[in-house]
Amino acid sequence: MSGFVWLVGAGPGDPDLLTRRAARVLSEADLVLYDALVSPATLDLAPRAQRFPVGKRAGRPSVDQETIHRLMITTARRGRRVVRLKGGDPFVCGRGGEEALALAAAGVPFEVVPGISSAVAAPAAAGIPVTHRGLASAFVVVAGHAESGYRPVLEGLAAGSATVVVLMGLGARATIAALLLRGGWPAATPAAIVHGAFTEEQQAWTGTLDALGEAPLPETDAAGTLVIGAVVSLAATLGAAVPAVQEGDAYAVR
Amino acid sequence: MSGFVWLVGAGPGDPDLLTRRAARVLSEADLVLYDALVSPATLDLAPRAQRFPVGKRAGRPSVDQETIHRLMITTARRGRRVVRLKGGDPFVCGRGGEEALALAAAGVPFEVVPGISSAVAAPAAAGIPVTHRGLASAFVVVAGHAESGYRPVLEGLAAGSATVVVLMGLGARATIAALLLRGGWPAATPAAIVHGAFTEEQQAWTGTLDALGEAPLPETDAAGTLVIGAVVSLAATLGAAVPAVQEGDAYAVR
Repeated sequence: MSGFVWLVGAGPGDPDLLTRRAARVLSEADLVLYDALVSPATLDLAPRAQRFPVGKRAGRPSVDQETIHRLMITTARRGRRVVRLKGGDPFVCGRGGEEALALAAAGVPFEVVPGISSAVAAPAAAGIPVTHRGLASAFVVVAGHAESGYRPVLEGLAAGSATVVVLMGLGARATIAALLLRGGWPAATPAAIVHGAFTEEQQAWTGTLDALGEAPLPETDAAGTLVIGAVVSLAATLGAAVPAVQEGDAYAVR
Repeated sequence: MSGFVWLVGAGPGDPDLLTRRAARVLSEADLVLYDALVSPATLDLAPRAQRFPVGKRAGRPSVDQETIHRLMITTARRGRRVVRLKGGDPFVCGRGGEEALALAAAGVPFEVVPGISSAVAAPAAAGIPVTHRGLASAFVVVAGHAESGYRPVLEGLAAGSATVVVLMGLGARATIAALLLRGGWPAATPAAIVHGAFTEEQQAWTGTLDALGEAPLPETDAAGTLVIGAVVSLAATLGAAVPAVQEGDAYAVR
């Protein structure tokens, strides 16, 4: 058979939150190239595959993007089934588009298998719907790692007009809080930080926008997502309905 | 046993894009209350369950929200396992938060099972990553059914600073295109309409922002999602990599 590449979203962490399609292509994979955020339990869904970590992680340099492209292309050309497994969704803040373009340019057949993005799942894990009638009917997703990306979006955003979700946002939380406050967002706007959504390491902080910049951080390497807006107020009632929250060490500050 | 309610996201339509957890709770459900957007193939995953349509659909009044709450609560109190199955993700533009609050107020135990939202999957189905290095690092999701919801968000959005995704956007496409053009978005900004993402009825139109308002609509009841921004230009290269696109009757206009 000819080789094939699947660009697969692994969702937020819990292997139960992979799609059925993702689980099936993993079960048949010969090689899995996976990001650091992908959990060991998820990799166990690929028992026949050679597994190769390529994403960035603490203390090690990441494999560069060109190398990832080359590994996918050369392995597929040898007739193997390759899964490129990415945390969340492949097309949300994850270079999935670049990898897809590289495969297309090389003439390697591939398919994109969507996953559950942390942009929605991290808030949900803490009991926060990104939209809710009367509180927010829109949401904005930015990445916290580059100010040039989020500043133009958030500067013009009318106060309270949408829920703001910041992926990879821990380091930017003070800058983003200040930016919104300067833009007229009330200091008392509810805000949350969700770490390791839908994993055993899940923790959440909830408070207000003016406290977000100095919110305490847990000792975890788990990815952190910021959520800002009136919908965060629902966490108090709905947070307990998500099992992972009950299992985690929630450290709500109110 | 005591009853339980799962608020489950069914994803964009393809039953293969349900999560493993969603498939499992469906297989054990006694009652499934489902929205119109949920496909028959997805309902087949609940062979033992009584199935009851509650969402709005063409030609019929929807069951009102209070009735949905009452059905969930009374059935769970009789010790049954209830799945409330919603298109996409329960917490994105879908009243999942209201239903969760009603369950919490009634003291009925429940759990939220995230699903793949059309906000990301509809663009992906047409080969459009909502973020892509050099094109967009942020995205904005609004609902097209109420101008009071999207206008404050889009009016202040710096031209080209984020990908704009409009759910339930067909009827609002002219108003939204005009709003963005007035806000300084270039007329040549790439734009797309994706109908019935990841279903057999999938179709996509691609063009430019100044043509979006008068873009032709296919004869389908499938839900339509608008996508506006430079990332739409990738559809030409990546669209063919998503199987559903190849199967559908794409009617690209360029």
